[in-house]
Amino acid sequence: MQTLDHVAIATPDLETGSAPYLALGLHPEGPDELVESQGVQVRAFRLGETLIELLAPVRPDSPIARFLEQRGPGLHHLAFRVPQLEAEVERLEAEGARLLNREPRPGRAGSRVVFLHPKWGQGTLMELVEHPQGEG
Amino acid sequence: MQTLDHVAIATPDLETGSAPYLALGLHPEGPDELVESQGVQVRAFRLGETLIELLAPVRPDSPIARFLEQRGPGLHHLAFRVPQLEAEVERLEAEGARLLNREPRPGRAGSRVVFLHPKWGQGTLMELVEHPQGEG
Repeated sequence: MQTLDHVAIATPDLETGSAPYLALGLHPEGPDELVESQGVQVRAFRLGETLIELLAPVRPDSPIARFLEQRGPGLHHLAFRVPQLEAEVERLEAEGARLLNREPRPGRAGSRVVFLHPKWGQGTLMELVEHPQGEG
Repeated sequence: MQTLDHVAIATPDLETGSAPYLALGLHPEGPDELVESQGVQVRAFRLGETLIELLAPVRPDSPIARFLEQRGPGLHHLAFRVPQLEAEVERLEAEGARLLNREPRPGRAGSRVVFLHPKWGQGTLMELVEHPQGEG
């Protein structure tokens, strides 16, 4: 695990949320994308090998909608890029990691993702991301 | 601005806070460092071109101590690496950015840092970091 895949940030809407990143000179990478499994519209800003991903809820039962209600906009989770998702999940479970989902879910740009419990992450929600072969 | 310098994470103590990063296979970079200006002890984990920095308060009036009281441990701020701190601060102020400090403060590893107001960051506390010449 040698790459921070993305930092995810909750925002009520992508236009408002984009303002500081545009001012900092970052540019959106590709078009916005709906990630149905998480109930979010995603806008990604490239920053070297890492993306800043803005997540805006598209339905009230989206985990991001609940996060915004409880904590307001801001930093939401960290995602670590792994070459083989199931192998890393198995390895971490053997070390006592708690998962939010064992069955990988579809993420942005054809990726597959597994979330780790924020208690295991010492207060930080963490995600493992596997990109399609030959990408990312 | 093309590099995410670090992601900072608040933790009550560095040993507990380190557990998930060690389990993920990351390694601390150098010894822990006291950053007196922020009232924190810092442990950094290298992840490609970005560091995960764990911040543990060393005195009760540290901003991190207050953050832990109010929100608990977890994601605290994002830091963007800039080549020339004063020039970038001036540019952003001209675009309407709100600063928490205009006078640069000493950061980790000889860096100089300026914080941007989380309202300007749409709920995310952001930092600009300039490393000593020839480093970072």
